[in-house]
Amino acid sequence: MNIRPLGDRVVIKRIEAEETTKSGIVLPGTAKEKPQEAEIVAVGPGGVVDGKEVRMEVKVGDRVLFSKYAGNEIKVEGVEYTILRQDDILAVVE
Amino acid sequence: MNIRPLGDRVVIKRIEAEETTKSGIVLPGTAKEKPQEAEIVAVGPGGVVDGKEVRMEVKVGDRVLFSKYAGNEIKVEGVEYTILRQDDILAVVE
Amino acid sequence: MNIRPLGDRVVIKRIEAEETTKSGIVLPGTAKEKPQEAEIVAVGPGGVVDGKEVRMEVKVGDRVLFSKYAGNEIKVEGVEYTILRQDDILAVVE
Amino acid sequence: MNIRPLGDRVVIKRIEAEETTKSGIVLPGTAKEKPQEAEIVAVGPGGVVDGKEVRMEVKVGDRVLFSKYAGNEIKVEGVEYTILRQDDILAVVE
Amino acid sequence: MNIRPLGDRVVIKRIEAEETTKSGIVLPGTAKEKPQEAEIVAVGPGGVVDGKEVRMEVKVGDRVLFSKYAGNEIKVEGVEYTILRQDDILAVVE
Amino acid sequence: MNIRPLGDRVVIKRIEAEETTKSGIVLPGTAKEKPQEAEIVAVGPGGVVDGKEVRMEVKVGDRVLFSKYAGNEIKVEGVEYTILRQDDILAVVE
Amino acid sequence: MNIRPLGDRVVIKRIEAEETTKSGIVLPGTAKEKPQEAEIVAVGPGGVVDGKEVRMEVKVGDRVLFSKYAGNEIKVEGVEYTILRQDDILAVVE
Repeated sequence: MNIRPLGDRVVIKRIEAEETTKSGIVLPGTAKEKPQEAEIVAVGPGGVVDGKEVRMEVKVGDRVLFSKYAGNEIKVEGVEYTILRQDDILAVVE
Repeated sequence: MNIRPLGDRVVIKRIEAEETTKSGIVLPGTAKEKPQEAEIVAVGPGGVVDGKEVRMEVKVGDRVLFSKYAGNEIKVEGVEYTILRQDDILAVVE
Repeated sequence: MNIRPLGDRVVIKRIEAEETTKSGIVLPGTAKEKPQEAEIVAVGPGGVVDGKEVRMEVKVGDRVLFSKYAGNEIKVEGVEYTILRQDDILAVVE
Repeated sequence: MNIRPLGDRVVIKRIEAEETTKSGIVLPGTAKEKPQEAEIVAVGPGGVVDGKEVRMEVKVGDRVLFSKYAGNEIKVEGVEYTILRQDDILAVVE
Repeated sequence: MNIRPLGDRVVIKRIEAEETTKSGIVLPGTAKEKPQEAEIVAVGPGGVVDGKEVRMEVKVGDRVLFSKYAGNEIKVEGVEYTILRQDDILAVVE
Repeated sequence: MNIRPLGDRVVIKRIEAEETTKSGIVLPGTAKEKPQEAEIVAVGPGGVVDGKEVRMEVKVGDRVLFSKYAGNEIKVEGVEYTILRQDDILAVVE
Repeated sequence: MNIRPLGDRVVIKRIEAEETTKSGIVLPGTAKEKPQEAEIVAVGPGGVVDGKEVRMEVKVGDRVLFSKYAGNEIKVEGVEYTILRQDDILAVVE
């Protein structure tokens, strides 16, 4: 992976429907915004972001839930990733 | 429960209408936003969230009232949960 | 009363028209937002709320004026209450 | 007067057109928001309001100009008052 | 002048077109918001305004440029004034 | 030049198309907001502006790029100027 | 390069499609905002920007991903550049 996110940003790789079923998490179709499951592939250094000290709480390899409307999508060597801020991550799946 | 919320987020499980009646709380249909009753099943660590120190005031097992438009819904092993920030919790039911 | 509000929230019980007359306060029908009279039945602990120190200035039993569009309504054992932030209370009636 | 405003709020009694003429102040009809003249009848304690230290600069009896769209109207024993924040007061008339 | 502005507010008296020509400043009619020239007739004390320390940089008698949409208009003894915050003053004309 | 800007404001004189060509900078017509080139003719003192310490980084004579929608236009002795905040200046052209 | 950006701004030169393919990064056409790849050609000094201490984390020569709607476009000696704030840079490509 050759993307180094800045500040409090992380790069995540979305986990597809089949994997989602394996981990027992289903993301239902409701009127509310639905979070999605992903694996973290790169983590920014944190530090002072927008004048506030941010400590990174996630690490590479963590499976996380995130809001599907958050962040920017990129494709590296044929694989799609999303770059988003740590604050857009809702929870770690353990 | 295998979801670990980040920062000041909590995971709650909505309490259905029958249980609501048992605890004596009824949520009437008015023009205002109606809070809903739920049980807390996971609590984030708190700490510095968006540059502010947040101390978690709720714990697993607490019954709480929350605004029904707050947070993100997920389904884990067939059970629906909501992930929301502690500040979206209005009160603890004792 | 079995509702413990979090942070700077309070629980109030609206005072009906008859009682309003007794205290000499009438809330006229104008184009502006009209405050309403209520009695405080529960007070949150205050403390750090949204990163700011909040000291609670009202106590259980106080009669207060509040903006009628503020807060969330609930019904406990047949009685309607409103949960709102202390900052939505305009004044104490003495 | 039996209304004790909270925080940086004050209670004012609007001064009618006749009195306005006496003090030599006329509030013309223009496209801009017009301030109105009033007398202060109660002053909140100030202190920490929304996380900021507020010192009250007005006192009971002051005649002030305020924006007519600010605050909430109430009627106590047949007299109309407005409850508003000190910051909505533009100037003291001396 | 019997108006004492509060906080960081000042009272100004707009300078009419003839005077504007004398000082060599013309305010052209363009699509952008046009500033206007005025003389300062009263200055608030400054101090802590909205939780921030404000030091007054203008004094009575200064000729200033200000945005014509800023502030509130009043008329005292037949003369029109505008009450506005110091931050709405763009520059002093010397 | 007889305009003294307040706080973090500066007064600039737009550079016309011919001069722009000489300095090698062309501002293309695209869908995005286009910056414009100008010379600084007056600089405010900086200091505490809106509760924040601002240090002026530009000086009289600097050629700068600024967003054409920023600031207020004035005309002094037949010459058009713009008064804008330092933060609306994008870069110095050297 | 004769453009010195102010504060936390940087000047970048967009990398065209051919180069993008070489680095293995493809920016897919989706409903979300797509980041673009660019090379940094000038970096502001950082320091106190809008009242917050900003440390520059990128340097001249870095290849970065940025949101294509961020910043202002300029053309210097026939070459197009974008001036944007460091916070609009998503990640460094290594």
